[in-house]
Parts: sequence; structure tokens; C-alpha cells
Amino acid sequence: MEFASDNAAGVAPAILDALVRANAGCAIAYGHDALTRRLERRFSEVFERDVAVFLVGTGTAANALALAHLSPPWGAVLCHSEAHAIAHECGAPEFFGGGLRLVGIEGEAGKLQPRAIAAALERHFGLRPHQILPAVLSLTQASECGTVYQIDEIAALAGLAHERGMAVHMDGARFANAVARLGATPAEASWRAGVDVLSFGATKGGALAAEAVVFFDPVRADAMAERRKRGGHLVSKHRFIAAQFEAFLANDQWLKLAANANRMADRLATHLASVKLPPIWPVEANIVFVRLPQALHERLQDAGAHYYVTHTDRTAPAIVPSGYVLVRLVTSFATTESSIDKFVALVKST
Amino acid sequence: MEFASDNAAGVAPAILDALVRANAGCAIAYGHDALTRRLERRFSEVFERDVAVFLVGTGTAANALALAHLSPPWGAVLCHSEAHAIAHECGAPEFFGGGLRLVGIEGEAGKLQPRAIAAALERHFGLRPHQILPAVLSLTQASECGTVYQIDEIAALAGLAHERGMAVHMDGARFANAVARLGATPAEASWRAGVDVLSFGATKGGALAAEAVVFFDPVRADAMAERRKRGGHLVSKHRFIAAQFEAFLANDQWLKLAANANRMADRLATHLASVKLPPIWPVEANIVFVRLPQALHERLQDAGAHYYVTHTDRTAPAIVPSGYVLVRLVTSFATTESSIDKFVALVKST
Amino acid sequence: MEFASDNAAGVAPAILDALVRANAGCAIAYGHDALTRRLERRFSEVFERDVAVFLVGTGTAANALALAHLSPPWGAVLCHSEAHAIAHECGAPEFFGGGLRLVGIEGEAGKLQPRAIAAALERHFGLRPHQILPAVLSLTQASECGTVYQIDEIAALAGLAHERGMAVHMDGARFANAVARLGATPAEASWRAGVDVLSFGATKGGALAAEAVVFFDPVRADAMAERRKRGGHLVSKHRFIAAQFEAFLANDQWLKLAANANRMADRLATHLASVKLPPIWPVEANIVFVRLPQALHERLQDAGAHYYVTHTDRTAPAIVPSGYVLVRLVTSFATTESSIDKFVALVKST
Amino acid sequence: MEFASDNAAGVAPAILDALVRANAGCAIAYGHDALTRRLERRFSEVFERDVAVFLVGTGTAANALALAHLSPPWGAVLCHSEAHAIAHECGAPEFFGGGLRLVGIEGEAGKLQPRAIAAALERHFGLRPHQILPAVLSLTQASECGTVYQIDEIAALAGLAHERGMAVHMDGARFANAVARLGATPAEASWRAGVDVLSFGATKGGALAAEAVVFFDPVRADAMAERRKRGGHLVSKHRFIAAQFEAFLANDQWLKLAANANRMADRLATHLASVKLPPIWPVEANIVFVRLPQALHERLQDAGAHYYVTHTDRTAPAIVPSGYVLVRLVTSFATTESSIDKFVALVKST
Repeated sequence: MEFASDNAAGVAPAILDALVRANAGCAIAYGHDALTRRLERRFSEVFERDVAVFLVGTGTAANALALAHLSPPWGAVLCHSEAHAIAHECGAPEFFGGGLRLVGIEGEAGKLQPRAIAAALERHFGLRPHQILPAVLSLTQASECGTVYQIDEIAALAGLAHERGMAVHMDGARFANAVARLGATPAEASWRAGVDVLSFGATKGGALAAEAVVFFDPVRADAMAERRKRGGHLVSKHRFIAAQFEAFLANDQWLKLAANANRMADRLATHLASVKLPPIWPVEANIVFVRLPQALHERLQDAGAHYYVTHTDRTAPAIVPSGYVLVRLVTSFATTESSIDKFVALVKST
Repeated sequence: MEFASDNAAGVAPAILDALVRANAGCAIAYGHDALTRRLERRFSEVFERDVAVFLVGTGTAANALALAHLSPPWGAVLCHSEAHAIAHECGAPEFFGGGLRLVGIEGEAGKLQPRAIAAALERHFGLRPHQILPAVLSLTQASECGTVYQIDEIAALAGLAHERGMAVHMDGARFANAVARLGATPAEASWRAGVDVLSFGATKGGALAAEAVVFFDPVRADAMAERRKRGGHLVSKHRFIAAQFEAFLANDQWLKLAANANRMADRLATHLASVKLPPIWPVEANIVFVRLPQALHERLQDAGAHYYVTHTDRTAPAIVPSGYVLVRLVTSFATTESSIDKFVALVKST
Repeated sequence: MEFASDNAAGVAPAILDALVRANAGCAIAYGHDALTRRLERRFSEVFERDVAVFLVGTGTAANALALAHLSPPWGAVLCHSEAHAIAHECGAPEFFGGGLRLVGIEGEAGKLQPRAIAAALERHFGLRPHQILPAVLSLTQASECGTVYQIDEIAALAGLAHERGMAVHMDGARFANAVARLGATPAEASWRAGVDVLSFGATKGGALAAEAVVFFDPVRADAMAERRKRGGHLVSKHRFIAAQFEAFLANDQWLKLAANANRMADRLATHLASVKLPPIWPVEANIVFVRLPQALHERLQDAGAHYYVTHTDRTAPAIVPSGYVLVRLVTSFATTESSIDKFVALVKST
Repeated sequence: MEFASDNAAGVAPAILDALVRANAGCAIAYGHDALTRRLERRFSEVFERDVAVFLVGTGTAANALALAHLSPPWGAVLCHSEAHAIAHECGAPEFFGGGLRLVGIEGEAGKLQPRAIAAALERHFGLRPHQILPAVLSLTQASECGTVYQIDEIAALAGLAHERGMAVHMDGARFANAVARLGATPAEASWRAGVDVLSFGATKGGALAAEAVVFFDPVRADAMAERRKRGGHLVSKHRFIAAQFEAFLANDQWLKLAANANRMADRLATHLASVKLPPIWPVEANIVFVRLPQALHERLQDAGAHYYVTHTDRTAPAIVPSGYVLVRLVTSFATTESSIDKFVALVKST
């Protein structure tokens, strides 16, 4: 009953096999190997256009490098107030960005609304050089609340950003979950909707440690190689990170793994709702937020269920009544029906 | 005939096995797992004192995080002019260190001499606040030239640094090769000789991607966890990086792997010397620098030998006579006698 | 009718005289001159304890250097959402602080409330190393809204900060106006109430360009000399910046100049209130915010009145009714009664 | 007998008068005043082309802002090993430049030679992304050794830099002394010879605190306003810094002041040479380096002469024989013949 994080899962078998296979023989280091070259072409196929791609080992690195590349030090990155980049990366974007500023914007269910962005733009910017410049809009897809932006929502937000001369970044640590849910192509879910740069995560989706920064306009990636190296994020035995991504992308493996995670979240949410424990936000990816009575929560913990109590609905604290806790349950590629059912049985056994 | 880099080798079997084994089940992320806890204790055993250890994925990250932690932004890091940190990390130490300065100091065969350090201290520092402050002495062990500092040499250099209030860092990307050669204990080769913080590399020695920053005084590591996270270097599925190091350290695996690399370098050097191609510096680790006639060089390349032409002896350019190239040959845990012998046979077949 | 800013005024005669006098003869540069030494002692007298003081040329420099010295790069500075440091310094604190984060907190009339700070602490911090650390509370005295913290209000806020291990910074660009209004001693208005470091402004108060960073615990100022120099803020002909401050502090000149500015603001507010144009916030320093009918505003501008339309009451936008603008009127040491009266006559002449 | 620094002099009368005159009335802050606008046009006249100019209060700020604007964080600035930017600015260029690297290059008499630059380019750069990129060549004119680059020397060095895609910066803290000596126009001595950005100093030449960053291609200055503000270097009462520069540039005041300083240095050198104390480098600006017998040195100090003992000839330490000290004597706009003659008389009175 592991629902603490998709990071708690291990490596998907197909990806681990690829790692082992990649170990045959020698290969030139730092990304000049054949496997990496092949993977770069594969990315362009997957996204249906020439892209520039930079592999790194963590999602925080991917986000921070991408944001730093899109914003000057005197720029602002607008993001949801619960976005991983502002809430859980210990200031990595500011560090990589030479002191850029993250501007957190509230939004229901982890999603930004055009009106709120317009209001933030009105409020914080305009007086040069006393005020910093709005530089990037960063969207998390799927969101930290387990919701998913629809394609037209992305397009509307991206359009607003582009009108203001801002770039659009997507934190896609759970891009796979979102694409699997949307039923769209990767291109439709990214650059066709206005995304300029994507942090495309594989780690939560089943890799060991593999994230990609994807520039849909390769020109924009100029000197990104230096930025990555300087950040200590150019892996020397690069074939092994490339191998993970190759296996992840092969045969829609990434979408299949994500679909399992999504399905398990649905199953969990459906069962919980059936006993009057409905999710507080739509379950559109692999995360379920639900209020649990304190006693039930303690019983579940005692029984060995792993998950985090969270404060994410702080914008509406009243909705966690006294005697309840708000918990976050995350499923993964490795979550099984039996694990869900065991958890649900425990819940129902009160 | 792969002599381009120890990074061109893959993963040693024992380490790959450990990675695969670590995949069983779930584990809490970000280093709170049992395997990581166990490894932390193991490090303290290996070094015979309580240490604070931070695992990261690249040697550049290890160096940059360590140096940034030991120097204020207005500090200087003194290192050899050929040190990896100054020559091949794209300014990572300056980036992580908020604009600290690396001061490169010349020294025969990749090794720093006390006199040269004293001269640099005399020349560059002293007028506060107009001049930056000397903060760290960084030694590369084994050096970029394939030589090894003797214990008493380290102690003399560290003593000089400590007298001046500087900290001592060791870039141990090839620490294993040095320790294997010295026949000393890890403690003797590090903190007992005056090293304060060690970048302890496993990647070149046979891991997939695993480096450790080791603080011999854990108090000094305060807030290093934030620095690492902020640098994007806290790996989420942390058990896998811990597993690599655990296997590396188990049963002297690291020393055995390094011993093979060293032995192969010796074999190569001995054979080359026998045909009047002596190494230009003592072969004390797993690297051989040798001058090759241009025609021989071309023949070797045509036959599929991999290695780099280098300019590392720039302090004495005259020693590469016209018609010759200086090449760097690196052996690894995976180098075989037959590979050496094939290369040597080619050399001799002129 | 100059009400745009206290920066629009020139230099107070006593200060300009001191500048001219300081020009006699030569003086060693960079603050080693006799005048600077004398001034440093004077600061300790004014604040009734040994202080470490660093003079710089701009308020932004004073704030940014102070905040950077009090917070690690992974720290947060909590301040009012309208604080100059977050709203009008183009990210200087982030730049000097290596990417620290400013967390803006709403508060009526430009003042922070303990409850809001406690809520921010609760919301944004606690999960190490994923979240940054709360490091500094920065209070603006007098505030950007022209209000003044009472001594006990400062003490309560500082107490809360200290309990959490945070340092307390005061942005005193208008410290003189606040002290003049409070009728307290400089010590009472600063360190006795819990302030650790003060940005003490003279420029708005009548100097040409002179600001001081005052550390009430000199030990805390260690290496601040390097930080200032490295920021390009160590003035070479330092005697001239010291001379400004000496004249500012002599014979309570600073309080007299501030008292005039405050009195003129009172006079302005009283007159405006008498014609149903009351200030929207208490007038406690030298700034009056008032809603003007659009037509009146245009007439005043046409008649040559200088002031800014502002959006500072954005926390309650409804209070600027349609057909009105919110304007900020700032008085200074140089503002005369006749200037006020001329402006008021224009207002009344509708 | 003040020869410690041109910073020890006060403010030239014409400039102080201008400061006092600028105090009449109010003026909009932050450089939007009429005086600043007028000065900006004046700069374009002086340099015979449209320039973008940014005034700041210190030479360190001018250099650091300029270099940071011309180099990416992963860039290198090549400069003389004795250049102020590398030797006496406490790492300001690195700080402003996000961790760029200064590469010091040796050169006789404070001047860089094309061959040495070519060698440095060959040695330190080329392997992307492992090595940083050469971004800027910074020349000090007049040099720290009191010598002056001839126009064709600048052109040759700038040509070399431009061939390699590098920008050319000139640290002109003593640009006036150089131009006065060269007898060239400001345009000939800067952009016509290939300089892209000039740190144009007035402070050492007779201002209180006034330096200008001059971009000869205004497009290149994009966002420099933000960079300056963010560095805390946008002076609020900006008319006073503009007034200094206006008076400096009016009626060739700057060249007349510099000519006096140069003439006094010549006089000093000539007299010293006549008693077998020749300058060690050509006296081309306002600085004389000379070896003094220790006894004479002590006698001069006792008699109240101010100057610094220096180590600047460290590239040839043998030339300071035992029993001698190397001293630096700096003249200024305020140095008088009688002061020189008094010093010389003391020297001769042995």
C-alpha cells in the first residue's frame, strides 16, 4: 500500500532491461555516443518536429535549467503558488537563474486561470527599470493537485503569455500521465498548444533517473549545453540516461505505464467516493486528494499504508473540517489492483 | 583498444547487479530509505570516523558543491592549472560558489608544490577588501597527469593551507586509483593527511553515476542538504545511487577495480617504454601520457584505437618535438591484458 | 508643487556646505580617512552602542547588501508585499543574495501583522531540504504607505522573527521621518525594539547620496567589507559620503529636516480632509495617499503639480471608485507651506 | 607631497561648482531630469556617434556592470594579470557576471601583447561544453603601470578579439590621462580603434564620484538599465552625478585636468631620473614607478610623503635589488609643481 509518491516506485522492467543492455562494451562519454544520437532523433519523431533535447538526472535540474534559460536574472517566472518549482525545489530556479523571481499565483485545483495571470501582470510589472520583467509562464502538467490542463486551456494561457512577450514552460514531471489522460499526441499537448520548452519527466513514470529538457525551437537552446555542464548536470556515462529514455519512449511504453498509474488512481477514487470519501479535486492523473477522518487515518497508517498528510488546499482551509486530515495518495506504474483493493478494504472495514 | 577515458567503460558487474537488486519493492525517496542510511554508516566505517556524506550524480557536481560550501563568494580556490575543476567543468565552481575565483597554479606532472602555493598566496592576496580571500586548496588525487601525491606531500600542502586558514579539498574522481597505488587506508589518504572534504568518485571506477561529497567534520556540512537540493542534485530514487556506492565499497571492490586499471596502465607503459616510447610522467594511476610519432598515431587510429591527443604538457611545449603528438591513454576497471597487448603489438609492428 | 518624491528635492544646505568643506586638501581613499573614522564613532553615539556601519550611495544597495548578509542563498526574506525591496528594486536582494527569495505578505496600510507572518511561516516552510529556510523579516519604517510602526509593534514582530531564528532588518529609507514622528530615540526605534540591521537613509532626508547599513552586533558584519566592495559600493573618495552623514546627524539636523517633511504632510492632509478628500491611510510620515476625482487630477497636473498616480491600494481596489484616481503626494525637507497652500488652493478652486 | 592615489585628491573646483549649481530647485529622480538628458546628448557629441551611457558612482561598478553585460556566465574575460578588475575589485566582475571567469595574462609594463592573448586563447578554450567561452578582452587605458596603449596597439588587440567573436572592453578609469597623452580624439581612442564598451572614469580625474559605462552600439545596451538598478547603482538624485560629468566634459576640462596630472608625473620622473632614479616603465600617464633605496624611502616617509610601496613588478622580481623598495607615485589634477619640487628636493638632499 505504497501511495507516498511515484518516486517510491522502482524502475519499470523494460527500462531496467535497457540499462543492463546498454552496458555492453564501451561508449564515448558525455553524450557523443550512438545511443544518445539515436535518442535525439527519436525525440524529434515523438514530437513531430526538430527539437533540441538535454537529458539530466532530476526534475529539479530540468526545471531550473529550463527556467534559467528562458528568463534573464531580472525576469519573473509566473507559476501556480503550489508549483513544484516554487514550493519544493529549494530555490533551484532562482539559483540557476541568477536571482530571477518566481511569482506564485493562486488557482483552484492546482491550475492557473488567465484572469489571475492578467491580474498578476497588472500588479507586479510595468515600471522599468524599478520592476523586474515578466519573462516566463510555467505550467505544471499534470498539476500538483492531480488535475490536467485541457489543450484549449493551455492554448489560452500560452496565448496570453506570448502576447506579453513571455515564454511558456511546461513542468512535465507527470507529462506522461497528462498525455495518457488527454488522449492527445505529445505535439498537441505541448508545442502545438504554445509550449516553448518542456521539462519531460521519465523518473516518476518508471525510469531510474532520467529527465529531459525539450526545446521546441532548437535555436533557443543555444549555449544550453554550457548551462547544463556548468550546473554539473552533464552525465559522463551518458548512454545510460539515454537508454532509459529510449526504453521509456519505445512502443508507447511511457503512455502504458502512465495509463496504469492513472487507472489505479481512478479505481482508488471511485472506491473511496463510494464510501463518502470523494476526492476534493477531479482525479485526472495519478494523484488523489481526500479528506480522511483522523481515526481512519491512524488506522491506515498502523496497517502499513504509506502516504503523506498535506496542506495543499490551504487556499480553502475550511474544507478540512476538524477531526479530519487531508491526505495525498499517489499511484504509479507499479501500483497494483490488489494494493488498491487492500487499502480500500481497510477503509471500508471501519 | 579503448583508452579515451575511464568514462567510456560501462558499469562493473557487481555494481550493476546491486542496481538490479535494489529495484525490489518500493523505497521512500530522497535518501530517507534504509539502503542510504546503511551506506552512510558504511562511509563512516571506511573512513574510520563519523563523516557526513552527500551523494550526487556527477564529479562536476561533487566538486562544485564542495568548493562552494568551503569558500565564500569572495574567496579563492587554489588548484593546479590543469585541475578538472578549472579546466573542464565549464565554470561550475564559480557558478555554485556565487562567483568565487579559481586560481590556477602551475606544477610539474599535475602536482602542486608548496613553494608555488606560497608564491601565489604572496602575489594575489592580502589587501582587504580590495582583494579576495584565499579560502580553499584543492588537490586532485590521482592528478590529471596520472601522478599520485604521496601522503607526506598531501600533509605538507594541507599544513600550508591550514596555516593560512584555508580549507583543504581533494578532487578524488580517481581517489580509488590513488589509494590502490599508495597502499594506504582511505583515512590515511584523506583526513589523516589534512583533507577536510573529499569528492569521492565511483563513476570512473566502475559505477553508473555515483559520486560522494564526504565531510570529515560533519558540522561543516551544515545546510549542505539545501545546497545540493538547490543545485538539482538530490536524486529522487536515491536508493539506486546508494546501491552503486554500497557495491563499490563492499569487499574492497573499489580497490580491486582500481588496481586492475592501474596494472593495465603499468603494463601499457612498460611495453611502450621498451620500444623507446617512455611515459612523460610517472605512471602512478591509470593514465599514460606518451609522445607518439605522427605516422604511428595515424596508424593506430586507423586500426581503431581510441584515445585523445592532448596539450597537457603545455608548460613545456618543447618536449613534443615536431612530427610527434602527445597522447593520453586511459585504462579502466574493464581494460583487459589482451586489449593492451593488441595495442602494443600494433605499435611494435611498424 | 513638487510632491512626486522626496528624491526630487535637492541637498539640504547644511549637508551641501559640509560637502564643500570636506573638499579641503587630500584624504586617503576608501574610508581610511579621519572624517570617516569620526563618523563611525558618531554612529555609535547616536545609537548608544558599538555598531558597525557601512556607507553606500543608494538605498537599494543598502537593502540588498544587508539582506544578502543576513540570509543564505536558500533563505527567504519576509516583507510587506509593497515593500520597496520586493516592489521597486528590480530584484537587487535576490541578486546580492545569490538567489534568495523575497516573500511578500499583504498587510493593511503598508504594515505587517504578526498573524500574517505566522501564516506565511506556516504555509511556505518546514520541509527540509525541499523548502527554503525563513531567514529574515524586513520591516519598512516609515512604510511605503506613509504609516509608522509603533515601538511595541516592532518589538512584537521582531520577537516573532527571533523565535523562529530569523534576523530582523529595517528598511529605514525614511527612518528619520519615523523617529521624528515617534519621538523615540534612535536606539529605541531600532535595536532596543529588536532590529538587528538597519538600512539608514539620508538621501531622501536631504543628503546627495548617502545611505548606511548599520549592524547593531558588529560581529555579524564580518566580511561585509568584502561584500560591499564586491558590489561596487565602496566609494573611493569616501570622505564625501561620510561628510554628508556627519552633517545629517549633527545637531539633530536629520530629525529637523524630517520634522518639516512630516509637518508639511500633515498640513496637506488636514487641508484635503477639510474638503472631503481624506487620506486613505493615517498620515504618519511624509506621504499622503488620497483619492482625487479624475477632473481635479487633470486640472492639478495642468497647473504644474507633480505627483504620481499609484495603485498601492490594490489590496482593496474597490475603494478607488470609478472616476477617481489614487495619488501619492510626498513632501520633503524642502517642501514649503506656500507650496502646500498653493496646491490646496487649486484643489479648493473647483 | 600626496602621491598615494589620484583618489586622494578632492573635487576639481569647476566640478564642485557644478554640483552646487545643480542643487537649485527640484528635479525628477532616477535620471529622467533635464540635466541627465542633456548630458546623454553631450556624450554622443564627445564620441561623435550615438552612444548609450549609464552613470554610476564607482569604477568597480562600471567595470563589473560592463563586463557582466558583455559575457555570459560561462564566458571568460581576458585581461592583464595586474588589471584592476582582476586584482583589486574583490571579484566584482565575477559577482555581477554570474560567475564568469577573469583570465589574467602577463604583459610587460601593464600592457597586453597579441601573442600572449593568442597563447591564452589556445591554451584555455575550445572544448565545448567542458570549457568556458572566451567572451571579452578588457584593456586598461592608461594601464595600472602608468603606460598607454597606442591607437594601433588597441586596434591590433581589438582586431584579434573580434576575430574570435569576443567583445572589447576598455577600463578607462584613467581614460582622460591616456587621451590627453595620445593627443587623439575620444572617438579615435575608443570605438574607432575597436572598443565596444568603455568604462569612462571621472572620479580619479577630478569628480566626486562619477563613472560612465559607454556603449558605442546602443543596441548592445538592451536591459543594461535593469542590470544597473539591480546592482543598486541607479542613483536617485541623478542630476548630481550628471552635473559632475557635464562639468568634466565642458570646455575640455577633463583633458586639462588630466594634462596637469600627466605633466606633474613627467616632471617628477625627469627629476628622479636626473639623480639616477629612473622610472622602471615609461611614464605615459600620471603614475611613476621607481626603485628607491630603503633609507631614502624611510626618510621620505618621515618627511610626510605619501605613496605606496608596491609589488607590481612581480613578473621580474630581480629588478628590485636588495636594499631597495619599489614605489608607486601617483599625481593628480591637484598636484602642484611646488609639491613635486619639495619631494625632489628631499630626494636630492641625501
